[in-house]
Amino acid sequence: MEQAILEGVMQLLEDGVPLAELSIERIARTAGVGKATIYRRWSGKEELFVDVLRTAEPPDPELPGTSMRDDLIVILESLRQRGLVSRSSAILHNVYVQMKTSPRIWAAYHAGVVAPRRVLMLDVLRRGQRDGELRPDIDLDLANDMFVGAMLVRTVMRPDGDLPEDLAEHIVDITLEGLRPVSSTVS
Amino acid sequence: MEQAILEGVMQLLEDGVPLAELSIERIARTAGVGKATIYRRWSGKEELFVDVLRTAEPPDPELPGTSMRDDLIVILESLRQRGLVSRSSAILHNVYVQMKTSPRIWAAYHAGVVAPRRVLMLDVLRRGQRDGELRPDIDLDLANDMFVGAMLVRTVMRPDGDLPEDLAEHIVDITLEGLRPVSSTVS
Repeated sequence: MEQAILEGVMQLLEDGVPLAELSIERIARTAGVGKATIYRRWSGKEELFVDVLRTAEPPDPELPGTSMRDDLIVILESLRQRGLVSRSSAILHNVYVQMKTSPRIWAAYHAGVVAPRRVLMLDVLRRGQRDGELRPDIDLDLANDMFVGAMLVRTVMRPDGDLPEDLAEHIVDITLEGLRPVSSTVS
Repeated sequence: MEQAILEGVMQLLEDGVPLAELSIERIARTAGVGKATIYRRWSGKEELFVDVLRTAEPPDPELPGTSMRDDLIVILESLRQRGLVSRSSAILHNVYVQMKTSPRIWAAYHAGVVAPRRVLMLDVLRRGQRDGELRPDIDLDLANDMFVGAMLVRTVMRPDGDLPEDLAEHIVDITLEGLRPVSSTVS
């Protein structure tokens, strides 16, 4: 039942219905259920919509937990995968763009999807700092933005940006090592 | 005359007219000029619109040219300033969001504003690499995304992200130094 509703929304989006015109009533009609059935599961269009996106995106990855570096590579690789999916799926791409024009849906997506990912990332960094993999004096929010920022610039802001297979590992290692020539760190 | 037209567009945006409904005809009427006057200066709505944004944004900075580090700090600081302006100006913020839903305007903004900034940034990095301030083995595109990414995540993607005064300098220095604890770079 839940699956039918989520697929109904995807179908409407594929048919080019703008986000703003997706009402619970129309979704119910498309999925062949009553409005009450939808409201029993979701408190509103925003929450339903966040679940649609969650279903369409690649699932969040299992972290190996072997080291901060390993976990960071898996997290950044999942961002890369999500970028690839968003590029290959015109619907998904279109939905992301429309979502930003709707503050309520954007807030729901942020609370339901983005914020938990950020908590996970900060956990990984905190453990890394405790285990001596990350400078003790670094602000974890800033470390998060540095690792994630380089990947997001490519996947989200530069739709033609190169996304080679080793990009996640490359970003993690270079962010750890720094961009200064090795000789000058010794001096 | 040019100024009156640019201000006319800003006025329409302040009045809440959606980007999609801004026609050359309506802009001409608001500015009190003929359509031909506008077409003599701009080839279309997209190009005019990019100039409106350019006028509303803080101007691109003069680079000191004293070192790569100094230039990078000035560039990142200008991104921070632009982020602050976009947060304090509801119109400008709204326009950025709407722009992304219009592929033609987005492409014009990219070609007219974003791409030249990127060329400038790559020049700074190339000089830095030549002068021994940047690792010789680093890909300049990746270096660009690392410096710029951390700042853009805060200004563009996280509207509540902290933007302290020393953020630009901080990002540049930590990206150069790396996030690995100093002891382990020696081992």
